[in-house]
Amino acid sequence: MLREDVTEAIRAAVFEELAAVGFARMSIEGIARRAGVGKTAVYRRWKSKLALVLDLITAVAAEGAPAPDTGSLHGDVRALLEVAAAALSHPVASQVVPDLLVEAARHPEIADAVRGALLDGRQGVAARIVRAAAERGELPEGADPDRALDLVLGPLYWRLAVVRTPVPDGYLDDLARSAIAALTA
Amino acid sequence: MLREDVTEAIRAAVFEELAAVGFARMSIEGIARRAGVGKTAVYRRWKSKLALVLDLITAVAAEGAPAPDTGSLHGDVRALLEVAAAALSHPVASQVVPDLLVEAARHPEIADAVRGALLDGRQGVAARIVRAAAERGELPEGADPDRALDLVLGPLYWRLAVVRTPVPDGYLDDLARSAIAALTA
Repeated sequence: MLREDVTEAIRAAVFEELAAVGFARMSIEGIARRAGVGKTAVYRRWKSKLALVLDLITAVAAEGAPAPDTGSLHGDVRALLEVAAAALSHPVASQVVPDLLVEAARHPEIADAVRGALLDGRQGVAARIVRAAAERGELPEGADPDRALDLVLGPLYWRLAVVRTPVPDGYLDDLARSAIAALTA
Repeated sequence: MLREDVTEAIRAAVFEELAAVGFARMSIEGIARRAGVGKTAVYRRWKSKLALVLDLITAVAAEGAPAPDTGSLHGDVRALLEVAAAALSHPVASQVVPDLLVEAARHPEIADAVRGALLDGRQGVAARIVRAAAERGELPEGADPDRALDLVLGPLYWRLAVVRTPVPDGYLDDLARSAIAALTA
């Protein structure tokens, strides 16, 4: 394998191991086995599984997600829900994200990285959506983007990552309408 | 120690160990050490850490939480948020619940027990609140209790268990008002 291919194989193996066994049980041995490389190939690149996971989360964060700009609050909220639902329905993400959030409560470095990768991006997107809506007069000036995120993503996260029951047809449309009613209450 | 005191000490130790190291890393040794008892005292009562945790979750479920009955949808939603916020702000619960939800995705037995302990109770409470509100004409007949739970508890869980940022004064009042606007949208 080329050096870049080895790095890529290790990265893919980490996500798969995280999903399969979780951060606590994950080992460098398990990652190397799944990637089809030797342990030293992993240790040459990252000094520990924590360093490895932090590096991966940071890379995901860098990809970012652009703020939707549909011209209406409903359109923007609907688009944000669509992206989040796709992410949360992905088998790897739906396992890895809640697991890392649990670890975040014990490891400040993971907390910072997860916050950077998952929350700062979302908060930035929410801030832009809320500001655009305020400029159009759809939300009051100075509306709180954190509150907006709670009301828009909270119900979706609860349903897809906590309760994990199937959502009925039209659920995202209904949620967008409900969230906007909540935002403007 | 009396036999009942030993059992109680083990139960308390399990919650503390779950909060401190999580289900994956928790061992019968660690539990016994924290409880100040021998390993055999644990094994005499429960055959594995999975059996132990399942038994504890089931006991918590049995305690249940009565449905609030304040006479108004706003009062009931506010009361439900109050109980959930207290539970999620508890250091043990805010660590143990997300951890067990992660394990639930890997162990069907944990999924069933967690569902029984955390969700069935909440869903029952939501069903009673929604039914009472429909009888008073505050919600349409046949309103979906699962949707109500998504809209009421989702934002709170997101804020307290995922984002983990402090909530401003009056947050629960605001959330109750927002959730009702969402419910009736």
